[in-house]
Amino acid sequence: MNIQLLLTGNEIMSGDIVDSNSAMIADRLAAHGWQIQRKVTLGDDLQQLQQEIADISRRADVLIINGGLGPTVDDLTAQALAAAGGVALKENTQAIDHLNQWCAARNISLNAANRKQAQLPENAAIIANPIGSAVGIELELNNCQIYATPGVPSELKAMLDHELLPKLERRLGSGHHQIRRLPTFGIGESGLQQRLSNSFPDWPDSIELGFRASLPILEVKLSSHNADDAPLLELWTEKLRDFLGDVVLGTEPTSLAEATLSALRRAGKSLATAESCTGGMIASQLTSVAGSSEVFNGGVVSYSNGLKRDLLGVDADTLEQHGAVSEAVARQMCSGALERCGSDLAVAVTGVAGPGGGTDSKPVGTVWIAWGSRQQIYARCLRLPFGRQTFQQWVSAASLDLIRRQAAGLEALPDYLQRYGSR
Amino acid sequence: MNIQLLLTGNEIMSGDIVDSNSAMIADRLAAHGWQIQRKVTLGDDLQQLQQEIADISRRADVLIINGGLGPTVDDLTAQALAAAGGVALKENTQAIDHLNQWCAARNISLNAANRKQAQLPENAAIIANPIGSAVGIELELNNCQIYATPGVPSELKAMLDHELLPKLERRLGSGHHQIRRLPTFGIGESGLQQRLSNSFPDWPDSIELGFRASLPILEVKLSSHNADDAPLLELWTEKLRDFLGDVVLGTEPTSLAEATLSALRRAGKSLATAESCTGGMIASQLTSVAGSSEVFNGGVVSYSNGLKRDLLGVDADTLEQHGAVSEAVARQMCSGALERCGSDLAVAVTGVAGPGGGTDSKPVGTVWIAWGSRQQIYARCLRLPFGRQTFQQWVSAASLDLIRRQAAGLEALPDYLQRYGSR
Repeated sequence: MNIQLLLTGNEIMSGDIVDSNSAMIADRLAAHGWQIQRKVTLGDDLQQLQQEIADISRRADVLIINGGLGPTVDDLTAQALAAAGGVALKENTQAIDHLNQWCAARNISLNAANRKQAQLPENAAIIANPIGSAVGIELELNNCQIYATPGVPSELKAMLDHELLPKLERRLGSGHHQIRRLPTFGIGESGLQQRLSNSFPDWPDSIELGFRASLPILEVKLSSHNADDAPLLELWTEKLRDFLGDVVLGTEPTSLAEATLSALRRAGKSLATAESCTGGMIASQLTSVAGSSEVFNGGVVSYSNGLKRDLLGVDADTLEQHGAVSEAVARQMCSGALERCGSDLAVAVTGVAGPGGGTDSKPVGTVWIAWGSRQQIYARCLRLPFGRQTFQQWVSAASLDLIRRQAAGLEALPDYLQRYGSR
Repeated sequence: MNIQLLLTGNEIMSGDIVDSNSAMIADRLAAHGWQIQRKVTLGDDLQQLQQEIADISRRADVLIINGGLGPTVDDLTAQALAAAGGVALKENTQAIDHLNQWCAARNISLNAANRKQAQLPENAAIIANPIGSAVGIELELNNCQIYATPGVPSELKAMLDHELLPKLERRLGSGHHQIRRLPTFGIGESGLQQRLSNSFPDWPDSIELGFRASLPILEVKLSSHNADDAPLLELWTEKLRDFLGDVVLGTEPTSLAEATLSALRRAGKSLATAESCTGGMIASQLTSVAGSSEVFNGGVVSYSNGLKRDLLGVDADTLEQHGAVSEAVARQMCSGALERCGSDLAVAVTGVAGPGGGTDSKPVGTVWIAWGSRQQIYARCLRLPFGRQTFQQWVSAASLDLIRRQAAGLEALPDYLQRYGSR
C-alpha cells in the first residue's frame, strides 16, 4: 500500500509556519495501521501542483492532499486536480448545499469568494467538512484514490476523524500496525535503551520498540505490523510497564498536569502552588486541563521577595540570611501556600532561571523544590543548567511529578532527584 | 534558481515529531533572498532516498538534504548519495580529523559507530560541523549542487549560519528578496485586508503584502524581490505603520509579553496579576522573558473563591451577590493585587473558560477583565466563545495588551473590546 501526502501553501514553503498538519495525518493514519511513504510540499503554484499530482497519481495507491481549498486566489487545489485529470471545473451542487447551510448558520449570505469553493473537478465527490466552509474533494486519477483536505488544522482534524479515516478503512481495510504507548517522566532515552537490552534478552523480534521524546515526557512506544501479535503486544506492554514501575504516567498519551490531577482526584486531595522561578507555569499547566478546579485551589506567583513575605508569610530574616534560593525559603513558601490557600498539598519552587542572577554558590540552573502536606514537607535542591525555557519546563514538570507521587502514596523518591541533585 | 529540500527520517514520516528544520532552513534562506521551490520528505529507506536524490538532481540547481548523517544504521544519506552518483564510499580524511578532534575535546576514544560518519562518497567535500560529530557533505550531481546537513536542530542551525549560507552566497550571489515585518495584536486578517485595499489604492505592485497569523499575534509582512525597491519598502512599511497605529507592537517579531514588558520598563512602572480563568498563563508568559523581574512583581492565581477572598481581599458578600465572574469581583481582584503586591499597575481576570460552568447569563467564554492603577481601574466584559485553550490564550493576550497600552499612555480603548464586548 503506497500512501503519499502532498502539502500546499506558500506559508509552509517560506518557513513562516511550521507544518504540523502532516504529523497529525501521519499520527492518525498510524493509529489505523497505515504508513505514509512519501511527502511532497509545494507553494501555491498551479503548474507545479498539477505536475506533482499527475506524477504521484502514477506511483501511489492513495494520495492525500492538504491545503489550498479556501476561498482566496492562491487556493488552487481544485484547479490543479481538474488540470491534472484533464477535466473541467463545475459548480458542485452538494458543495453549494453545504455552503448555503454554512452561511445560514452564521446568518450571512453566500458571496462570490465563498461560492468559488464549490467549483470542483466534474468527476469529484465531496468530503463533508463538519466545521468549516471548504468541503473536501475525492476523486480517482490513474488508479490512485485522491482525497483533498483543508489546511486549517481544526477542520483537517474534524474531517480526518469523521470522514476520511472511515473512508480509508472501508477502502483499505484495517491495517495491521498496532501501537501501545507508555508515557514516562524522569528517565533518559539512552539510559533506558541500555537497561532494556540488558533486562530483556528475550525481547521478541516482531515487537518494535521506539521512543518519542516530547519533553519533558518520554513516550515508550511498542508496535507490531502483525495482526496475530496482538496478545504478544499486550503481554510485553505489561512486562515493560512492570519493569519501568512508577515512572509510567498511564497507558494513554497524557500530560504531567493530567496525570497529577488524576492522582489528586483519586486521593481526594487539593493542591496549591507557590512559584518563584517558574513564574506561574505550574499553575498554568494545571489550569489548562478542564475540571482542574476540583482539586487545584490556586496559588501565588511570588516573583519578588516582597511577595514571598507578604503573600506567603516567608520570614524577612530568613530571606535576608539564606537568600531567596534556599531550602529555608522554599520550605516556608510551601508551608505558606498550604496555610494561606487551605490546601491538603502544596509545592513551592525558588531558583535561578537565568541567564542573569547566578552566583558561584548558586549558579544559573539551581532550584529548591519543597513539597508536601502539613504533616511533612520535603525539600531538594537540583542543578538544571538547561537554559531559561527548558529550566522552567523541567522544574514545572518535576514539581508536578513530585505531587503526583505524593498523591499516589509512592514512598520512594524518584531517581532524577539524585541524578540532578546538588547535594 | 531552483532550490529543493529533501528531508529524511522515520520519525518525521511517522508523525512522531513535527519537522521544524525545514521551516528553519526556509526562513534562513528567505532572509538571504532565496526561496525553496519544492520539498520532499522520506523515511529511512535507502532505495527511495537514492531514487529521489537522482530525480531531484536532474530538476534542481541546488538540493539541500537534511537528516541521516548520524552514526546509527538508519542514517543513510552518505550511502544514498554514493549510490545515486554511482561512486564508492571512502573514509574521508578531513572527516576523520574532525571526529578525532571532537572525541579528544570530550576525552573519549573514536569508536566504530562514530567512525562510520567519516565514510563519505569519494567525490564529496565535507562541510564543517561546529558543534556535533557528524560533518556535512557537499558534492555535485547532474549539475546540481548538493549539500547534506545534520538533523539535530542545534547542529543544523550552527552549520547553516557558519558554513552553508556563506557557501550559498558565494555560489548564488545575494538574493534580492527583502522582508519587513510588523507584529500586531487585536485586528483580524480579513478585516485588515479589506481596509488596506480601500485605503491604499496606490499600493505599488512590487511590494508584496502578506500575513502570518501566529495567534494571538498577526504579523503583517511586506516583501520585495527587487533590490532597487529598498527605499520603497521602507516608505510603505512606514506608511502602513502609521495607518495601523497602536495595534503595531514593534518593528521586529515579538511576543505580547515582550512588548508589554518593554512598555512597562519605558514607563518605569511595576505590574502584578490576579488570575482566575487564565490560571497563571499571564504570569507565565511574562516570566518566560529573561529580565521580567525588573518590572513584574508576581501575583495570585485565585482559582477558587476562597483564594479570591483570602489572598486578594475580595469581599465575601460581593462574591455571594454578584458571583465570581462579575465586574465587582474583577475590580476588587485588581485593587487587591495593586495593594497586596505593591505594584503600580495590575490586571485581573475572572471568567468561564469551559467546557463546563456556563450559565444562561454567563455562558462559557464570558470574562471580566479589570486593569489599571490605584488612581483608576477600568473593567470590561468580553464574550470569547473559542474553546478552553484559545479562550485562555486570548484573555491572556488581551490582558497583556491592555497593560501595554496603559503603560504606553495610549488613551483610546482598543477596537477588540467593542468587537468582543458583551455590552
